Amino acid sequence: MSVIRVVVAGYGNVGRGVIAAIKNNPDMVLAGIVSRSPERVKKEISDVPVMQLEEVEKWVSELRPDVAVLCGGSKNDLPRQTAMINQFVNTVDSFDNHSCIPQYFETVDNAAKKSGFVSVISTGWDPGVFSMERVLANSFLPGCRAYGFYGLGEKGGLSMGHSDALRTIEGVLDARQYTHAVSESIEKVRNGENPQFTPGDMHTRECFVVVSPDADKAKIEQEIVSMPGYFAPYKTVVNFVTMEELKAKYSGFPHDGLVVAAGTTGNGNPANIEYRCQWGSNPEATANILVAHARAAVRLSKEGKKGAFTILDIPPSYFSTMSQAEQLKNWM
Amino acid sequence: MSVIRVVVAGYGNVGRGVIAAIKNNPDMVLAGIVSRSPERVKKEISDVPVMQLEEVEKWVSELRPDVAVLCGGSKNDLPRQTAMINQFVNTVDSFDNHSCIPQYFETVDNAAKKSGFVSVISTGWDPGVFSMERVLANSFLPGCRAYGFYGLGEKGGLSMGHSDALRTIEGVLDARQYTHAVSESIEKVRNGENPQFTPGDMHTRECFVVVSPDADKAKIEQEIVSMPGYFAPYKTVVNFVTMEELKAKYSGFPHDGLVVAAGTTGNGNPANIEYRCQWGSNPEATANILVAHARAAVRLSKEGKKGAFTILDIPPSYFSTMSQAEQLKNWM
Repeated sequence: MSVIRVVVAGYGNVGRGVIAAIKNNPDMVLAGIVSRSPERVKKEISDVPVMQLEEVEKWVSELRPDVAVLCGGSKNDLPRQTAMINQFVNTVDSFDNHSCIPQYFETVDNAAKKSGFVSVISTGWDPGVFSMERVLANSFLPGCRAYGFYGLGEKGGLSMGHSDALRTIEGVLDARQYTHAVSESIEKVRNGENPQFTPGDMHTRECFVVVSPDADKAKIEQEIVSMPGYFAPYKTVVNFVTMEELKAKYSGFPHDGLVVAAGTTGNGNPANIEYRCQWGSNPEATANILVAHARAAVRLSKEGKKGAFTILDIPPSYFSTMSQAEQLKNWM
Repeated sequence: MSVIRVVVAGYGNVGRGVIAAIKNNPDMVLAGIVSRSPERVKKEISDVPVMQLEEVEKWVSELRPDVAVLCGGSKNDLPRQTAMINQFVNTVDSFDNHSCIPQYFETVDNAAKKSGFVSVISTGWDPGVFSMERVLANSFLPGCRAYGFYGLGEKGGLSMGHSDALRTIEGVLDARQYTHAVSESIEKVRNGENPQFTPGDMHTRECFVVVSPDADKAKIEQEIVSMPGYFAPYKTVVNFVTMEELKAKYSGFPHDGLVVAAGTTGNGNPANIEYRCQWGSNPEATANILVAHARAAVRLSKEGKKGAFTILDIPPSYFSTMSQAEQLKNWM
């Protein structure tokens, strides 16, 4: 087994998860970390090279990666970094702005076909594994819709994007947002109704907010529940808590989700497909999936492939460390 | 969208399911049915050609299929029929003798590489989709084991193989066997214990048996519970019922199953992945999945591929009627 050299680009929660995940994958080695702020990273990391993210030619030449796992944000980092880095090495990213994925795919595909490298985009658990499960459910049960629900457990799932949105409000010092699935709506899908839902039919939102001592709580609450896109379409509960309470009870990044599709087979017999995952750490889960895709990216590249790929374009066997013979024996 | 011409080989429960499934897939048309007993099939079918299965060159020439879906049994039919038919046309089958799959793959692969056609083997929900979910779970959570449980619902899942085994006993007129998952064992997996199970730890078996009036029930029950492989390793309950009761309460082919894997991500955070399906009709479910693989087989063949494939070797997008652009827009 030849060892895959991985560079981690970006040292946030997902980047840290990728570094941890590489240790659990015996066919991989961390070749280095690249960051926009290498000096900051070096305060924590001393056992691997840390280099300036923008100096791509330099770190590709020195670190000789087979693949770079891009752990930046979808809004500002990835659209710029992916094209820049994919000129010199295979890349994998978790670009998760669903509605922009077709455009992003096209841009990356054109660039990667020119550079001759592979770029696996938009992977993780959603988009990513959930996307694949939606395609499979729709293929195996033609005409049925596949629904995604999030935060099925008691505590719900932590939404980073919505937590960030809360923190933009004046007077808010810190905040966490937990998404909850509406269980009655899941039951409607399971019953084969293929219902038409508004976003608010499927999820509710629970906010834990720390405000400054002089803040107007009523005004902040009103601002939250009326925030377009983020909270206005949902039943939203706002809880004001102390900073101590927030840190004690609402730390960590738990998340979970469900893809569910129900329909009928041939002569009207009921059929139900569900994919469920629960993560103690959302960024670590994303990281584990990114790392498996890094393995696939290297394999695709070695076959001479180039351009953009999603999980939909990759044979499942490519994610495994096992040979075809081992997979046939152990998993079929 | 060019229409895919499908021949169904074998007119049992799965074959009937495939014929029904084709009607629900707008890109497919039933080109004909081939059977070892075409005269028997013609009594039920009059709107499509029915031909002798063994006369492969003849029906390939007349029916011009893009792919043949092989619906025979794994023990006696498929090992012979797949090689015979794949000489002349792409094939898809549901060969489900798990331990023989590596050997079967090799044999079919060698033959198909010579004939120049694609042969997708061992698909359905298990082996098939469950195999893929096992590979993915093991790839995304390295070191964790993926377990398969069957018959989680109240009634359990009907096992055709075990029902057949009951019918081989002298004095048994008819029988059905329902498999039940041991829920405590599922919980152990969910808790991340990665336990070592014997078959009897995971499932129990419930038999509904109709015997001849003069049969020795005690002797039959003893023969069932001590049958090696099928029942001896399991807690087995035998219920003697009348033929009327069997037909009224235990008809149909319901089945369901669960792939479950639990482990940890990077720094020891819990992670749990589950794939669950429930089928009102097991053979119709297998048929729906076979049909999606028939689409993939034709596409692989058009790309110039040849040889044996399993679900592990096929990009998920190949199962869908949608274009790549539609999939990126709708499912990512």
